[in-house]
Amino acid sequence: MARLKIGFFGFGYVASTLTCGIERVKAGEIDLTGIPLENRIPGCNVEEIDVVCGFDVDRRKIGKKVSSFIGMYPELKQMEAFDSIKIHQGVNLGSTDGMPFEAEGVDDSNTLEDSAKIIVERIIEEDLDCTIVVTATEEIYDVGSVSALEAIIQNDEKDKITASMFYAYCAFAAAKKRGRGIVHINGIPSKIANSTVFTELAEKSGSVLIGDDISSGQSRLLSDLMEHYKEINRKILSAIGANWGGNMDFYRLQDEKRNESKKITKTGCAKDILGYDMPSDIKPHGYLSTLGDKKAIFMHFPMRLFNGAEDEIYICGRINDSPAAAGMLVDMGRLGALAISRGESGINATINSFYCKWFGKQHSKILAYQKLVGWVGKS
Amino acid sequence: MARLKIGFFGFGYVASTLTCGIERVKAGEIDLTGIPLENRIPGCNVEEIDVVCGFDVDRRKIGKKVSSFIGMYPELKQMEAFDSIKIHQGVNLGSTDGMPFEAEGVDDSNTLEDSAKIIVERIIEEDLDCTIVVTATEEIYDVGSVSALEAIIQNDEKDKITASMFYAYCAFAAAKKRGRGIVHINGIPSKIANSTVFTELAEKSGSVLIGDDISSGQSRLLSDLMEHYKEINRKILSAIGANWGGNMDFYRLQDEKRNESKKITKTGCAKDILGYDMPSDIKPHGYLSTLGDKKAIFMHFPMRLFNGAEDEIYICGRINDSPAAAGMLVDMGRLGALAISRGESGINATINSFYCKWFGKQHSKILAYQKLVGWVGKS
Amino acid sequence: MARLKIGFFGFGYVASTLTCGIERVKAGEIDLTGIPLENRIPGCNVEEIDVVCGFDVDRRKIGKKVSSFIGMYPELKQMEAFDSIKIHQGVNLGSTDGMPFEAEGVDDSNTLEDSAKIIVERIIEEDLDCTIVVTATEEIYDVGSVSALEAIIQNDEKDKITASMFYAYCAFAAAKKRGRGIVHINGIPSKIANSTVFTELAEKSGSVLIGDDISSGQSRLLSDLMEHYKEINRKILSAIGANWGGNMDFYRLQDEKRNESKKITKTGCAKDILGYDMPSDIKPHGYLSTLGDKKAIFMHFPMRLFNGAEDEIYICGRINDSPAAAGMLVDMGRLGALAISRGESGINATINSFYCKWFGKQHSKILAYQKLVGWVGKS
Amino acid sequence: MARLKIGFFGFGYVASTLTCGIERVKAGEIDLTGIPLENRIPGCNVEEIDVVCGFDVDRRKIGKKVSSFIGMYPELKQMEAFDSIKIHQGVNLGSTDGMPFEAEGVDDSNTLEDSAKIIVERIIEEDLDCTIVVTATEEIYDVGSVSALEAIIQNDEKDKITASMFYAYCAFAAAKKRGRGIVHINGIPSKIANSTVFTELAEKSGSVLIGDDISSGQSRLLSDLMEHYKEINRKILSAIGANWGGNMDFYRLQDEKRNESKKITKTGCAKDILGYDMPSDIKPHGYLSTLGDKKAIFMHFPMRLFNGAEDEIYICGRINDSPAAAGMLVDMGRLGALAISRGESGINATINSFYCKWFGKQHSKILAYQKLVGWVGKS
Repeated sequence: MARLKIGFFGFGYVASTLTCGIERVKAGEIDLTGIPLENRIPGCNVEEIDVVCGFDVDRRKIGKKVSSFIGMYPELKQMEAFDSIKIHQGVNLGSTDGMPFEAEGVDDSNTLEDSAKIIVERIIEEDLDCTIVVTATEEIYDVGSVSALEAIIQNDEKDKITASMFYAYCAFAAAKKRGRGIVHINGIPSKIANSTVFTELAEKSGSVLIGDDISSGQSRLLSDLMEHYKEINRKILSAIGANWGGNMDFYRLQDEKRNESKKITKTGCAKDILGYDMPSDIKPHGYLSTLGDKKAIFMHFPMRLFNGAEDEIYICGRINDSPAAAGMLVDMGRLGALAISRGESGINATINSFYCKWFGKQHSKILAYQKLVGWVGKS
Repeated sequence: MARLKIGFFGFGYVASTLTCGIERVKAGEIDLTGIPLENRIPGCNVEEIDVVCGFDVDRRKIGKKVSSFIGMYPELKQMEAFDSIKIHQGVNLGSTDGMPFEAEGVDDSNTLEDSAKIIVERIIEEDLDCTIVVTATEEIYDVGSVSALEAIIQNDEKDKITASMFYAYCAFAAAKKRGRGIVHINGIPSKIANSTVFTELAEKSGSVLIGDDISSGQSRLLSDLMEHYKEINRKILSAIGANWGGNMDFYRLQDEKRNESKKITKTGCAKDILGYDMPSDIKPHGYLSTLGDKKAIFMHFPMRLFNGAEDEIYICGRINDSPAAAGMLVDMGRLGALAISRGESGINATINSFYCKWFGKQHSKILAYQKLVGWVGKS
Repeated sequence: MARLKIGFFGFGYVASTLTCGIERVKAGEIDLTGIPLENRIPGCNVEEIDVVCGFDVDRRKIGKKVSSFIGMYPELKQMEAFDSIKIHQGVNLGSTDGMPFEAEGVDDSNTLEDSAKIIVERIIEEDLDCTIVVTATEEIYDVGSVSALEAIIQNDEKDKITASMFYAYCAFAAAKKRGRGIVHINGIPSKIANSTVFTELAEKSGSVLIGDDISSGQSRLLSDLMEHYKEINRKILSAIGANWGGNMDFYRLQDEKRNESKKITKTGCAKDILGYDMPSDIKPHGYLSTLGDKKAIFMHFPMRLFNGAEDEIYICGRINDSPAAAGMLVDMGRLGALAISRGESGINATINSFYCKWFGKQHSKILAYQKLVGWVGKS
Repeated sequence: MARLKIGFFGFGYVASTLTCGIERVKAGEIDLTGIPLENRIPGCNVEEIDVVCGFDVDRRKIGKKVSSFIGMYPELKQMEAFDSIKIHQGVNLGSTDGMPFEAEGVDDSNTLEDSAKIIVERIIEEDLDCTIVVTATEEIYDVGSVSALEAIIQNDEKDKITASMFYAYCAFAAAKKRGRGIVHINGIPSKIANSTVFTELAEKSGSVLIGDDISSGQSRLLSDLMEHYKEINRKILSAIGANWGGNMDFYRLQDEKRNESKKITKTGCAKDILGYDMPSDIKPHGYLSTLGDKKAIFMHFPMRLFNGAEDEIYICGRINDSPAAAGMLVDMGRLGALAISRGESGINATINSFYCKWFGKQHSKILAYQKLVGWVGKS
């Protein structure tokens, strides 16, 4: 393979961090820390990734180069490459309601059908190998079939579709139209890779669909801790997994309906792995602006052991959201491309199981890693 | 198999807890929580285990039934079975120096050779299937060969041998003499299963040797956390793994030479798994009598991730030492017997890797579990 | 003074714990740990306190002796004294809506006016020196004046009055009628000691009113920590004060309206003491039944210091709700009686400042203690 | 008063941070966060402080301007003022043994008497109002009387005197010689302000002596926590106060003899305030280079409350050593000058009690603050 061209739907802190980090790797400023498989993925090294464009609805970004607004993220370094990455107008579909900036989407002045044509055209023009959705967390919608989805678009029923559904539709439509598959990653907690509708669209366009949500922080740790305690047959008596943050993701979660989707991707964890349920409170707990992208976490597990004794474990700390997700995405895009090169399409459960927060039942990531390494290394 | 008869070298809190817990399981008072493999080990259920005797040098215990001194451990329930478990005199060999009780060993009035005869005779008389060493943590001694070990015993060089070395020698001598192998578990951080000398003795007597030290608490958790972070390619910048306790094990560790052996079993952990070294302080830190058997733990890991960002994790809590170890031993004895029934002798790396703290390089316990379950289930 | 006779409105875990603890002190089983002023309050030692009756709406308790239902609280010991403490029927006024037991109040079959007569009569009959409200947390209601309160009762407007308002009214009405003041403690987060209406009723009946809510745990610690950091001029950047519990108080807080009152008593803390505001999340976070009365807490404070450096502090742990509150109440009742004996009536700011969660602006408890000790010791 | 001229004995991270911070305040870059009394000290605002020189034995610093070596502390900004602050050669007296740099003191080529003359002359030449000792932590020596101290110097007994003793002697000798008192602050855990010898020298030279050690972090927090729990009469069952750091102070503490002095200033804390002793481990625990100046801390307190219940509190976090100490020193120097201007000499217990770690019995800092504010504000 030559290079991997990535486009982001939603060009915020995650997209900017991934771009900045990759450019710093190319420049020799930093090593591959935080990228799980480093340069062990056949066909594409980290240095061969190019972020080529973004799609966004924030008026401060539309039509601009990244260099013009990267100052919004003071932790990030201005890189030369930012001068050549352009932000196209994306779709809104209510995804930015209540956000603290002015938004305008292609869909605000076009029908869904026309909006789709515009986005599809851009994907083809930019010749994207990989599209990544890292927009705002949404309410979860479901749609029963591909034909139902197509009807929504034809009938311009904007209240029945979310941005992440629309972007997935466009990515696969572009792949089909140009006759070359795409890697589409749904990095937010909406039901895309978990939906047979989008799986079908991926398969029919020779594309690979990866998702949903990126597992990179507290819930990932939780799943391995639960496996750890399950194997020594501890009885977890209650489980707290709380976090507070100050980035836009937490800002949005002040809207209870959006928080709902976070709960779905998180609460199953303990039960799925342990095989029993216990009183638990596992979800984002609050927006505290000064915490920024580095959230504060707290976990608590009292547990019973042999002869009725009880242990108690507390975990706390500060963990970065965006750089953690960005490091995973550097692998995910390349692995999707590897899958396509091996003739796969649709869902690759091995990739999803290690990198995604929400894919089937929750499971230990340490075990998923073994399968992943096996799949990557097969000849 | 019929039943599994266990004898303990050192009948303190671990032995008492294991006995109490097993009897409560038999009585239907508690379930199998804290016993990793529950009743999934072919050939022997938890209810089929009998603790039949102990060996100790504490004058308050020698020649007594457990029921007469179980009050020393107020957390434990007096059980009827304690009335039939007798404590024989064990060997001292300096292992109780500085301990807050009067000790008298068989070796105080006998040569090593005669002492060995006495202990061997007892093992045969009691018809033990499994012997478990849970005496005081010792200084680590090494001995180059079986013949060197035999010379030490013949020449009565008591300063060249420790209690755990002597007990391992006796267990295998008894097995050889009676013509039936034994499961010998070295549950303390001395070099027995890690020594080719004792491995050879085990093999030659058709016995299985399990050890060294029991992995049940903080270092076990540490190894899975390190695997967790290794797989997402974090760079751990420093590592603290501290604990404080109030049981006899912590009392003894006030003697710096004994603490040395704890450091050896603990510090390798991060490096062995991560593949690089970092500034670290991983060891028991202090004796605080009022903490009792439930130690206080603290762990801290700052780490670098993608694009130079830094996360920081703190873990603290209270964890029980003896019930955790006892739960593991309930499996270990039965698995050793299973190995013997399958014709094995010497070392079974699969068992040691999951249950022991110190066996070869440190590794993730979650991964060791997969192999263990495979070995147990093979037909 | 002779003895101090206490009656509880709401005879749950706090009342039971206080009674059990005092009886154990009398029996010489425990010392005075957890009672701030021990036996240093002139006029009444701990041994001179008698809990004589309770008022409750739980059908399992009405008309019963405490000994008959103390088994609901397995941590508590059955004491002989429980046989002589009777539970009268109290008022409901919606305070138990949604609670997991059947409730029936005097007010369910009587007008407010008749209900008041019944309660007042009981207080006089039982010859109570001190009444303590430890019922369920309620929504906060306000009432403008004594006459408005009296009108509500006369007009039987049950939806305009809460149980804690009604009980305070009855306590002072009984004091007035019998011509002897009473110590009335409002131990829940409703606006009683913070209301000029009830202050006026207390004054006019020669009574002392103490409240609101008992400061015994996390918010108490928070106030001293904030004073600590204020004095070295740290700039607190954000503040988390979260807790989870499994007692009835947390059960009730699942009702958002009730949680509102908890937020009021808690969130002011940091700002009142520091003099500036910061993003914060300080409130009860969830009901996890298995935690019981021993809640799990978490606090987090990043802060700026000299030359722009930043420190970060995490606090976590398990803390008991009811025994902590009970220990404070042992002082509060005796101090109220001391105030009456010194000719005071209405509010004693010195007592409230140290023992209550909600009284005027939040402040350091360490400083309040100095004033308290001064007031107690004055001759 | 005009300005306050400060000279440092030991020009490391604390001295550099204080200088940098004050210059940034002057430049309007930062506010007064971290300076307890801000500009509320009569006679001298923060902007009126000038660091004019230092004394050191590190060959990389002797005879240089601070600007030439400030790069050793990458967290600090290069400021213009560093160009005019010169480092004179100080005395070694073994205080840098084992440190990872080459050291050469005035005492290496001079008698103690001549060394004293040199240092005294420098103090007078530089016209210092305030000298601050922030050298390496030393072994604690004691000397019985002023005449015994003078004899040591005359007899050139270099093994009987430490650097902090020698510097205190020189500061007061300079004050006496020039006929104008000096503020001398002993910022390390040696026995200077706690010695009647140096108190006498301070008094006789019209100087004010402040010390010993600066209370700015974990032990300060510990003292207020103990006061907090004492006032609600909790029984602390055990106490852990551990910390790990990567600065030179921790490097030195690898030498057990130096750590001894840290233990003395720390362990008394819980007992002095609570009035009883408990098993405890309160001291620096280890050097982990990558932690730098921002140490990792851990505290643990199980405690008994009313009716035998038990609470448990864990505290952890990262806290900066040098900026915290520097912020306190900004006050201490000005307060010493205020005391001199009010005609005081020798020890001012009010200042020492709030700012120092080791002065008489340990006590709550919150209470000490009340006295301090009273003393500062008196007219």
